[in-house]
Amino acid sequence: MKSINGNIASPLGFSADGLHAGFKKKKLDFGWIVSEVPASVAGVYTTNKVIAAPLIVTRNSVQKAQKMKAVLVNSGVANSCTGVQGMEDALTMQKWAAEKLNVEADLVGIASTGVIGDLLPMDTLKSGLSKLVVNGNSDDFSKAILTTDTCVKTVAVTEMFGRDEVTMAGTAKGSGMIHPNMATMLAFITCDANISSETLQLALSQNVETTFNQITVDGDTSTNDMVLVMSNGCSLNTEILPDTPEFEKFSAMLNFVMQDLAKKIAKDGEGATKLIEVAVKNAPNALDARMMAKSVVGSSLVKTAIFGEDPNWGRILAAVGYAGVEVPVDDVDIYLADVPVMLKSSPVTFDDEEMQDVMQADEIKITVDLHAGEAEGMAWGCDLSYDYVKINALYRT
Amino acid sequence: MKSINGNIASPLGFSADGLHAGFKKKKLDFGWIVSEVPASVAGVYTTNKVIAAPLIVTRNSVQKAQKMKAVLVNSGVANSCTGVQGMEDALTMQKWAAEKLNVEADLVGIASTGVIGDLLPMDTLKSGLSKLVVNGNSDDFSKAILTTDTCVKTVAVTEMFGRDEVTMAGTAKGSGMIHPNMATMLAFITCDANISSETLQLALSQNVETTFNQITVDGDTSTNDMVLVMSNGCSLNTEILPDTPEFEKFSAMLNFVMQDLAKKIAKDGEGATKLIEVAVKNAPNALDARMMAKSVVGSSLVKTAIFGEDPNWGRILAAVGYAGVEVPVDDVDIYLADVPVMLKSSPVTFDDEEMQDVMQADEIKITVDLHAGEAEGMAWGCDLSYDYVKINALYRT
Repeated sequence: MKSINGNIASPLGFSADGLHAGFKKKKLDFGWIVSEVPASVAGVYTTNKVIAAPLIVTRNSVQKAQKMKAVLVNSGVANSCTGVQGMEDALTMQKWAAEKLNVEADLVGIASTGVIGDLLPMDTLKSGLSKLVVNGNSDDFSKAILTTDTCVKTVAVTEMFGRDEVTMAGTAKGSGMIHPNMATMLAFITCDANISSETLQLALSQNVETTFNQITVDGDTSTNDMVLVMSNGCSLNTEILPDTPEFEKFSAMLNFVMQDLAKKIAKDGEGATKLIEVAVKNAPNALDARMMAKSVVGSSLVKTAIFGEDPNWGRILAAVGYAGVEVPVDDVDIYLADVPVMLKSSPVTFDDEEMQDVMQADEIKITVDLHAGEAEGMAWGCDLSYDYVKINALYRT
Repeated sequence: MKSINGNIASPLGFSADGLHAGFKKKKLDFGWIVSEVPASVAGVYTTNKVIAAPLIVTRNSVQKAQKMKAVLVNSGVANSCTGVQGMEDALTMQKWAAEKLNVEADLVGIASTGVIGDLLPMDTLKSGLSKLVVNGNSDDFSKAILTTDTCVKTVAVTEMFGRDEVTMAGTAKGSGMIHPNMATMLAFITCDANISSETLQLALSQNVETTFNQITVDGDTSTNDMVLVMSNGCSLNTEILPDTPEFEKFSAMLNFVMQDLAKKIAKDGEGATKLIEVAVKNAPNALDARMMAKSVVGSSLVKTAIFGEDPNWGRILAAVGYAGVEVPVDDVDIYLADVPVMLKSSPVTFDDEEMQDVMQADEIKITVDLHAGEAEGMAWGCDLSYDYVKINALYRT
């Protein structure tokens, strides 16, 4: 596998575009990804019981058509909690895009992110759509899906399947409302591999638990979360089938892309100054290990301590303790980077200067070793800063 | 039931004291409550899997002795995550207090709150204990148990049981690490009623779910949470037995005291500027209603919006949606104070000036009406401010 300097349109047969339509005051807020041919498609969606209209529309169409030609996305207005009118607007958004591309409505996915409760301004949508082009500016798509994100999040890799090169790319928006249970965000992944929708869904489902579901910014899950993967077969490789070495290779690519985007989302959490990576090692089982890692990375007290560059490891152990799973607490080691702060469940003294270096870094690695099994779990998050409060206190007005 | 201007020593036969021993730099940090005669006792403890040494000691002694003569509390050092030495220190703390009072060790409860991971300074404890007196300054006890709290939290009520007046008083510390699952805090309740430990435990257990377990500050649960109730029979009333009108009356007193302390803790959450009260009405069942109310009051996005005095009700509905229970989402009304912002699951426009008045108040009442049953659940919390971050980023250093 090779990382390349690419974007969401790097895989063969994909193009993308982005522009300012007017959902937001100034920034880019509208874009699409288009595949030359209808692509195989797989998706995972929010676990929130309140589901935004565009998600319902997209999920239904993916189930029905099992193919996707394009996905149309706006930021600024989430079209969530908008009742019957919101559902009508989402269907209209899908229909208009399909008409423009001259395909059936079910071949178009839609997504919206932004303020909850406001209706989509349909005039804005219509005029924006009239300006979107196939083979537009692909980098602008990655910009157009952002809300309070401070940077675009993209990744692209290639891998050989026999003599055929397969390219996979991803782009995501995150920032606030990022939490386990299908990290609350939008992510779009494109690929030119030849793979069925069913096999693609298998690969997506088996990798989401250890990647997007293991990041958290503030514990809130949104009504609009979605990861969509499209793979259009343009690389002309032999079809990738389950239970083959090719499938494992494809799954590893997808895992790399998803983990990379997940970490970028965590690092760019609203107001974040540091990425936090938590590894729980030697746990009785992997699910419990992931739950404990998530609990630590989601603790407001751990997050504020790390913002303050304070090695308050007691809060780390406390967060392990309320993860909601059985925790073997008698022989716990905790490390900040490589510096032990607790060994055999008792505090150990550390060199203050060495610790200062650890805490001043941009990325803080926390390791919790339970000595109670062989399973491991990882999670990613960010610190909790003044700016998180500022951004969210003033988001709407 | 009558509220009185009292303190933790108002019930007959109780005294208390508080002083500065040196666990903290300047503030009062050490105190005790003493009953003339060993009192009936009941307790609820943290659900965190990591349990601090003083809690283990107190819980074991309560189980064994079923009576309590006194409870000794220090703030500043939590004696949590302190391994074998911490357990020895906790037992020593208990033993020294028992020796001073000339009773068996199991008749003394102990509690510690403050920084996790530091060992108790036993010299400080010893010299502090030598200065504590029976019949000391009862108000100082309520001060001595505080950490980052900005005010003392006390309540006292009286009620007639036949011809006998029964007095009940409570005091608590909260501030950070306050969360459901036995609100993370220390609370001590004294009463002069004649009631067995078993009946007292029954009353405590049935009221904790709707009071202390329904408050949250930051989603973290501590290793040191404890609610202890002592009732010494000094009012000489006829013994209160389960399944009697007197028990209901006693339970109502306890509920009043616990809810009052719970709301005071929520309102004084770290950095809080507003109390948030959430009522979920007409839900299918009470437990689900409580879960949804807790979810709203615990949402960082709702909390920051309220800090910003922003009526971002979409975040309220989103938080209802991820409460982890089935949510009937088709006919939801949401009110901020008395102003409807969503009716029948669709947004409604509201008068901006009227809403401004609502949002500028010190206490924000949120009502979610599901029109899907007859059960109700309430929860209390506070907004998330810059000061929360400041307090917790710099707590240890």
